[in-house]
Amino acid sequence: MIKVVIIGDGYAAADLVRILYGHEKVQIVSVTSADNVGRRFSEVYPSLTGMADITLQETDPSQLKKQGDVAFLALPHGLSVPVVAELIEGGVRCVDFGADFRLRDVNIYKQHYLLDHERPDLLQEAVYGLPELYREQIRNTRIVANPGCYPTGASLSLVPLLQNGLISTSGIIVDSKSGVSGAGKGLSQTTHFCHVNENFKAYGVGTHRHAPEIEQELSVAAGKQVNITFTPHLVPMNRGILTTAYGELRKGVKPHEIREAMEDFYQGERFVKVLPHGVYPETKWVYGSNYAHIGIYVNPDNGRVIIISAIDNLTKGAAGQAVQNFNLMLGLDEGMALQSPGLYP
Amino acid sequence: MIKVVIIGDGYAAADLVRILYGHEKVQIVSVTSADNVGRRFSEVYPSLTGMADITLQETDPSQLKKQGDVAFLALPHGLSVPVVAELIEGGVRCVDFGADFRLRDVNIYKQHYLLDHERPDLLQEAVYGLPELYREQIRNTRIVANPGCYPTGASLSLVPLLQNGLISTSGIIVDSKSGVSGAGKGLSQTTHFCHVNENFKAYGVGTHRHAPEIEQELSVAAGKQVNITFTPHLVPMNRGILTTAYGELRKGVKPHEIREAMEDFYQGERFVKVLPHGVYPETKWVYGSNYAHIGIYVNPDNGRVIIISAIDNLTKGAAGQAVQNFNLMLGLDEGMALQSPGLYP
Amino acid sequence: MIKVVIIGDGYAAADLVRILYGHEKVQIVSVTSADNVGRRFSEVYPSLTGMADITLQETDPSQLKKQGDVAFLALPHGLSVPVVAELIEGGVRCVDFGADFRLRDVNIYKQHYLLDHERPDLLQEAVYGLPELYREQIRNTRIVANPGCYPTGASLSLVPLLQNGLISTSGIIVDSKSGVSGAGKGLSQTTHFCHVNENFKAYGVGTHRHAPEIEQELSVAAGKQVNITFTPHLVPMNRGILTTAYGELRKGVKPHEIREAMEDFYQGERFVKVLPHGVYPETKWVYGSNYAHIGIYVNPDNGRVIIISAIDNLTKGAAGQAVQNFNLMLGLDEGMALQSPGLYP
Amino acid sequence: MIKVVIIGDGYAAADLVRILYGHEKVQIVSVTSADNVGRRFSEVYPSLTGMADITLQETDPSQLKKQGDVAFLALPHGLSVPVVAELIEGGVRCVDFGADFRLRDVNIYKQHYLLDHERPDLLQEAVYGLPELYREQIRNTRIVANPGCYPTGASLSLVPLLQNGLISTSGIIVDSKSGVSGAGKGLSQTTHFCHVNENFKAYGVGTHRHAPEIEQELSVAAGKQVNITFTPHLVPMNRGILTTAYGELRKGVKPHEIREAMEDFYQGERFVKVLPHGVYPETKWVYGSNYAHIGIYVNPDNGRVIIISAIDNLTKGAAGQAVQNFNLMLGLDEGMALQSPGLYP
Repeated sequence: MIKVVIIGDGYAAADLVRILYGHEKVQIVSVTSADNVGRRFSEVYPSLTGMADITLQETDPSQLKKQGDVAFLALPHGLSVPVVAELIEGGVRCVDFGADFRLRDVNIYKQHYLLDHERPDLLQEAVYGLPELYREQIRNTRIVANPGCYPTGASLSLVPLLQNGLISTSGIIVDSKSGVSGAGKGLSQTTHFCHVNENFKAYGVGTHRHAPEIEQELSVAAGKQVNITFTPHLVPMNRGILTTAYGELRKGVKPHEIREAMEDFYQGERFVKVLPHGVYPETKWVYGSNYAHIGIYVNPDNGRVIIISAIDNLTKGAAGQAVQNFNLMLGLDEGMALQSPGLYP
Repeated sequence: MIKVVIIGDGYAAADLVRILYGHEKVQIVSVTSADNVGRRFSEVYPSLTGMADITLQETDPSQLKKQGDVAFLALPHGLSVPVVAELIEGGVRCVDFGADFRLRDVNIYKQHYLLDHERPDLLQEAVYGLPELYREQIRNTRIVANPGCYPTGASLSLVPLLQNGLISTSGIIVDSKSGVSGAGKGLSQTTHFCHVNENFKAYGVGTHRHAPEIEQELSVAAGKQVNITFTPHLVPMNRGILTTAYGELRKGVKPHEIREAMEDFYQGERFVKVLPHGVYPETKWVYGSNYAHIGIYVNPDNGRVIIISAIDNLTKGAAGQAVQNFNLMLGLDEGMALQSPGLYP
Repeated sequence: MIKVVIIGDGYAAADLVRILYGHEKVQIVSVTSADNVGRRFSEVYPSLTGMADITLQETDPSQLKKQGDVAFLALPHGLSVPVVAELIEGGVRCVDFGADFRLRDVNIYKQHYLLDHERPDLLQEAVYGLPELYREQIRNTRIVANPGCYPTGASLSLVPLLQNGLISTSGIIVDSKSGVSGAGKGLSQTTHFCHVNENFKAYGVGTHRHAPEIEQELSVAAGKQVNITFTPHLVPMNRGILTTAYGELRKGVKPHEIREAMEDFYQGERFVKVLPHGVYPETKWVYGSNYAHIGIYVNPDNGRVIIISAIDNLTKGAAGQAVQNFNLMLGLDEGMALQSPGLYP
Repeated sequence: MIKVVIIGDGYAAADLVRILYGHEKVQIVSVTSADNVGRRFSEVYPSLTGMADITLQETDPSQLKKQGDVAFLALPHGLSVPVVAELIEGGVRCVDFGADFRLRDVNIYKQHYLLDHERPDLLQEAVYGLPELYREQIRNTRIVANPGCYPTGASLSLVPLLQNGLISTSGIIVDSKSGVSGAGKGLSQTTHFCHVNENFKAYGVGTHRHAPEIEQELSVAAGKQVNITFTPHLVPMNRGILTTAYGELRKGVKPHEIREAMEDFYQGERFVKVLPHGVYPETKWVYGSNYAHIGIYVNPDNGRVIIISAIDNLTKGAAGQAVQNFNLMLGLDEGMALQSPGLYP
């Protein structure tokens, strides 16, 4: 059995434990917490009663590095760097859910997270954990930077088109809509039930920290700098992200090339489904699952391209993708513990 | 008292009766129905018990024209034309909630609604009922075409900018999100609770009938043909539309001109609030009210403009706006019966 | 104009301001806050933009008593007593939303709220503000104890039956279901959207503080001590309380006497509707309104009585009822500003 | 592989396919439909894209009996009897989700379903499929009558107490609250999103067909006729049933005996969790899982007992329990494909 430690006990950690409970090669040896030390994990998440009765510990990397083979970290930004550093020194491979290892450029990191990155060397080593883009590098790395939930949806939608030079690199708009669990378990008026229920709003307009992460991956795909307009919105539901991305066909590109490129790109990918013509995804189709569904519309008159993708923000957008990365790192079947369909209705 | 007849008993009619119950100059003399003839209105909508116990009638224009001074029609498209024709002959002024009198070009009407318009002459006479744009014409017309819910949100957001030549007429994207009541009371899998709840999706991608209506009004404002990309989405909530509209500053336009134009345009308008810098509207801020809230973001680096507006699709997007038009037509105070704030939370 | 001060800025205060905005005899001269001093009320509740732009003040009774004719207090228990004491000395009549003046027996107050009541003399003077039970006393008091939301629903359901000796005083069960706004605006995991949404639970089982308040009023009605079993539940919605109350016909009582007693009791009451045979209320029928709807079922075989009532917890269960009391205290029409139907859908 | 046919394509069938997709011993050979013949199952339920692309067939028992080893039937009442009759003749064992084989007394069946039961002989043979009560009989039967969702929650709560003579057989109240999927996929105003959302109501007051089914099982447990008062309510959520059951301690019974009896009864049961003192279940704790959680409250002063249970109505209340029964019938591990924890949040 592979010994796993989990650092953090928020929603993504809960989803991770749910998934790993069904993973035949994994033994969870430790889960840590900031707020709930001494409580059982199943007390915090009673859906796991009898399945995850492990007692929550303080986060002590000097101990954890002796206990685990692999660590999953779900910590606020800035806090992962020293923990990952200590763990990999101790031979523990890391999958980090936070932002600390996602942005390759320390200046952009500093600009958006207002922190100097303490270990640029580790940043160089870390691999961006989107298996559909970086599968081989993930197999061999010690540090996976698990992508943000919005960037997962946006990258899956747009990378195939940019990589093939089919849409313009300017004027891209990413209009995303997320369920509330993306905001985490922390308390604020903006996650109070009465605030969110029967309500819809945009937030982080022009300032959301996932924009540079999306731009990074789109720029890699395009081979040149891509700047986007990104607007996240909050949907009164627990789980799911729908991303409506808008681009423009480059001159000379035929509408059918969009679908062909997308289908080629995801040929053989088991977690990404390109939907048939005229079918657009709904977040509930991937509720609680690791799948991404993508729908395509191209307006033949004006060359506008609309790519709509649906993921579960906690699963393909966090814990599921982390397990997919873990499976790759450990040489296991990539889909182990991730095959379940979404829950419907 | 002004005698009012209401033709139709769907959600918009229910909201209309709710509003008119508080209107001191109105007496509702008849309400008609396709499905519920013989039942009391308050049986269909028990929230109106003791307030609207009127019995629902068949829709017989030959009778209705003798009973009412003004008619509100909430009928499926195609059905309003003959009824309006008969009513105005009988001297009854009409506010039509449907699409039959909104599109000035009969060819566009035919293309999108697959019907020949039977009375293009009346179409010429009808006024598009967005008071913030057509106040004077509304006062004097016999036929008001009450705008669609999406077009209300989109036009309020974009008309001031196009009219002042501040944004490019090409590349405009309108990404809208609506509560479910916009789909009406009719039964289909797509309005089944279990389908909608905990779900989010786009629909009518590239084909929604409100697109030509939005384009019509934006084109009037711009003084030239405007084509847009319009994507509506369904939010798991009853009421509200949030519209996120994207445009580009025209060359030489300064970012601050956007806010100035918007504030000037809505100066003195009591139902449209332009929010302060950095504040973006939420649909619940206008829940059940006739107000529209508008937030503005301009990216100074790349000239992208984001205008976000919130309305209640049944009130400012339908019944409230209809009463606003009615008040204008009858020479009453424009805000009569419409002053209540939204319900929160 | 009657000068009103509002102490507190939680959800009940927001609903109060919404209602009073439509009250032609009221001028709000001050609103106080614990957390938001210096902000405008409409900043905290943007649905009131342009309607309640008053700046929030510290709660200083020595000032408030000079400013207002009537005060509405929405404070945590224990805090109302000294404020009310000072205000009524200054000639300001008080409607208290909290628990401090509801329980006539200081021992029961102490047992459930763990506080010695500082002013039992004022407690004697206070009137329980359920107008359907205490209308005359309310007109003449200086202090109204506005009832709790659950007790409003339960008392309206059961008092008529107990007062007429129709059901047994033992074995009464009150199974109530409330929207989340009843828990207030404060932050806790139990009001986090992701906790509540797609979830249903009981809480306060056997211990909820509204049980003694319900028992007090039922005991008055019965003329003897009544003990109940009370179980509140949390519904994933913002507003509304449905109360399902179970009792047993007393020997010799005929089933039809239940309905007759109920209809007699509420004869002429404008805010309580006894529904026809076979019709049971839904919370949305009174959404945002001051109405209570009551449905009746009696099993002729075993004498079981089920009374189901629906109210809006923030309106008839708090702010609306407070205005109803205010109207009575000031000799105004009891329904002033309260006539609007609920919002549907 | 065991060959399975599924008759019907409603929500319970969808949940069944979801569960069976993870069942290593099962091959689904046919799924039938009334409305969707010729479509792929995954077209109707896109969450199963790539996992259940089987084409829906007409329900032809003469064919199905050649194809399957076991059939799951999810048909409207009355329709199962002839199909089951033909299938078992053909050697196909049946798990029926409907009501046709649940009520052992044909008179009660006729009274509540207004049908003469065509095959009382098969009724005698059928076993009520609550494994915690009838495990051994289930192993050996040809026909399992899968329990109703409400009766599952109510029986699990009350059978242990009645079987041990701890509570009175009279005066039992079962106040249940269900998510909307319990009403099925069919279209009606009562399942329209706008009707249900932000609403709460009772329905079937005094008349719901699950009452006689609950009474049947409680009577078996008590060894004498038990009549209950049953009130179902509709919660604005997709999945879950919370049952709040009220009883009275029989004379001489000590409060602690309730918990002891419950814990003894469910000792070793893997799908029923008796929660610790002071902990009450929430439906989301079992969301999408086959678990039942039970909380216990006994008022020592008046002997009132409150048992609160939570299940997922589609899983433990339908498809999950059906698979549990199937596993027993086939001699497989009872929990095969049913071990996953619920989805949270």
